[in-house]
Amino acid sequence: MERAMQDVIKVHCFGCGALNERGLQIKSYWEGDEVVCRWQPQPHHIGYPGILYGGMIASIVDCHCLWTATAHAYRRAGEKMREGDTRHLYVTAALKVNYRKPMPIERPVELRARLVEFAEKKISVACDVLSGGALAADAEVVAVRVPAGPAPATRA
Amino acid sequence: MERAMQDVIKVHCFGCGALNERGLQIKSYWEGDEVVCRWQPQPHHIGYPGILYGGMIASIVDCHCLWTATAHAYRRAGEKMREGDTRHLYVTAALKVNYRKPMPIERPVELRARLVEFAEKKISVACDVLSGGALAADAEVVAVRVPAGPAPATRA
Repeated sequence: MERAMQDVIKVHCFGCGALNERGLQIKSYWEGDEVVCRWQPQPHHIGYPGILYGGMIASIVDCHCLWTATAHAYRRAGEKMREGDTRHLYVTAALKVNYRKPMPIERPVELRARLVEFAEKKISVACDVLSGGALAADAEVVAVRVPAGPAPATRA
Repeated sequence: MERAMQDVIKVHCFGCGALNERGLQIKSYWEGDEVVCRWQPQPHHIGYPGILYGGMIASIVDCHCLWTATAHAYRRAGEKMREGDTRHLYVTAALKVNYRKPMPIERPVELRARLVEFAEKKISVACDVLSGGALAADAEVVAVRVPAGPAPATRA
């Protein structure tokens, strides 16, 4: 099986960094033209008792959509992600989540993200959030490219 | 000094629950017509090294805006929040965050939320996110009322 993107380019981010021991450590994979993440919440990640916290949904959506942007940037460039490679970095300019149904805390959630718009400096990504196979939320993220070169805010 | 809203009505939510030992435990207070929260991120709450994680910003905004909705519902009803009182409950229908500037992880963030629209079943709240006194993000939350009566998703 292909390695998760976050196990190739290892970062410190709370949501997606393999190097953040106290983080959520989401994992994203290509599936056709979509980028998919399955994540099991922990019992304390509740909003109301028994129900997954909306902020946690926003968090994993944010990270997963940035990785979707990065994955598309690599694919467009005809390149593969490589360890330590930080040429295609993005940050979130805008995040919007519509919450449709409560998601039981014991169920894994599935994120399915797809490209909406691709420009050199800005990528828009749409993401469905499923729980038990049903659409429970949908989201959109606008990701903007981080200029190349060493910066205080690099991922490495 | 007035008690924080979350220390009057104690809930289990990861973002705002006084009863969630592993949560973020934000605290919200009236200041005039605004509801304000100041929160110190922990060192592992980073997106990029040194920079506060955007998902964490979305999380605290989500909770703080729901408390702002709840606070306005009590104020409109001419009532005060009381321990164990869950008559004015809200959940998030939509969350939108615009990220404008990176926020250094060592600085507290300040959330200032205000009412945009108040209807019986739906409240819109706008929220500014400040870091070092400067606007670093802005957000809008649509909160919908939870029907009264015992429910699996109650806060208590």
